[in-house]
Amino acid sequence: MATRKSNHDQFYEMFVDELRDLYSAENQIVEALPKMAQASTTKDLKEAFRAHLSETKNQVRRLEEIFSILGEQPSGEVCKGMQGLIAECEEVINHRHPDFIVDAELINKAQRIEHYEIAAYGTLKTFAHHLNFDQVEDLLDTTLDEESNANELLTSIAEGGWLTTGINAQAVQA
Amino acid sequence: MATRKSNHDQFYEMFVDELRDLYSAENQIVEALPKMAQASTTKDLKEAFRAHLSETKNQVRRLEEIFSILGEQPSGEVCKGMQGLIAECEEVINHRHPDFIVDAELINKAQRIEHYEIAAYGTLKTFAHHLNFDQVEDLLDTTLDEESNANELLTSIAEGGWLTTGINAQAVQA
Repeated sequence: MATRKSNHDQFYEMFVDELRDLYSAENQIVEALPKMAQASTTKDLKEAFRAHLSETKNQVRRLEEIFSILGEQPSGEVCKGMQGLIAECEEVINHRHPDFIVDAELINKAQRIEHYEIAAYGTLKTFAHHLNFDQVEDLLDTTLDEESNANELLTSIAEGGWLTTGINAQAVQA
Repeated sequence: MATRKSNHDQFYEMFVDELRDLYSAENQIVEALPKMAQASTTKDLKEAFRAHLSETKNQVRRLEEIFSILGEQPSGEVCKGMQGLIAECEEVINHRHPDFIVDAELINKAQRIEHYEIAAYGTLKTFAHHLNFDQVEDLLDTTLDEESNANELLTSIAEGGWLTTGINAQAVQA
């Protein structure tokens, strides 16, 4: 007869399943970013997506390091949330908007992905804290910072700075 | 022969399509929240989801007010991003986790929905600003504030306050 699992063990299993879900999400993003860079019409946005692709590949490796620390396998989940968010990006890419709208829309959809990851890493970092996995918590926190920075960079490309006009203001001009 | 549309007109059409997408998203949330309240095992979380249901119904009406101001129809888009996020909530509801994990996971998934909405309302508010729709911008900003507050309330239920133990800490205890 199976021994009844402790709350701690069941919480841990849920945590690992969520990490696998996030691993699926990050791998979906690695597939999507080259298409988003390809579809971008401005140099800044193309470069931002390409830089974030190499950052995301690092985040995948960071998750693999976490699975290795925990002695768990990374595969086994498919992140449905990320499938929906990437479907929205594909709608933009396939819609054949005029150039000046493509970039505003790609940023719009990419920021939804960043916010998804900010929520996901924020919660999983908290779960790691409650499970006393200090090293895992630190690794999740590093990625959380990167996602927040990526989101801010997209805002600054969309809205511009002191000396630059952002993509949105350029797009709306008649 | 069709007249070539100005950039402004094309940006406006994209903006209205995005509002329709958000209208679809909010209506999906109105369908999902009663199930999430039903599945919650603690009084605080049940009440938070029920209160957010009535807030979300108001947000739907606020979007209808925006469509009315613009002289546009609200229907015609299906938000795929929200379909994916709600599919994640349904996985939690159907998984039959032990009670103490259900609530932590419902909050985890609900915060991804809140973050999606924060990103979406944030961008659409900016688009409204560039289109000089001041009243629409204010209405979108009101909902953006509500979504941020809803997200913070979920964090406080998960993590507790000065005098209370949050759901996560309770869940992980053996």
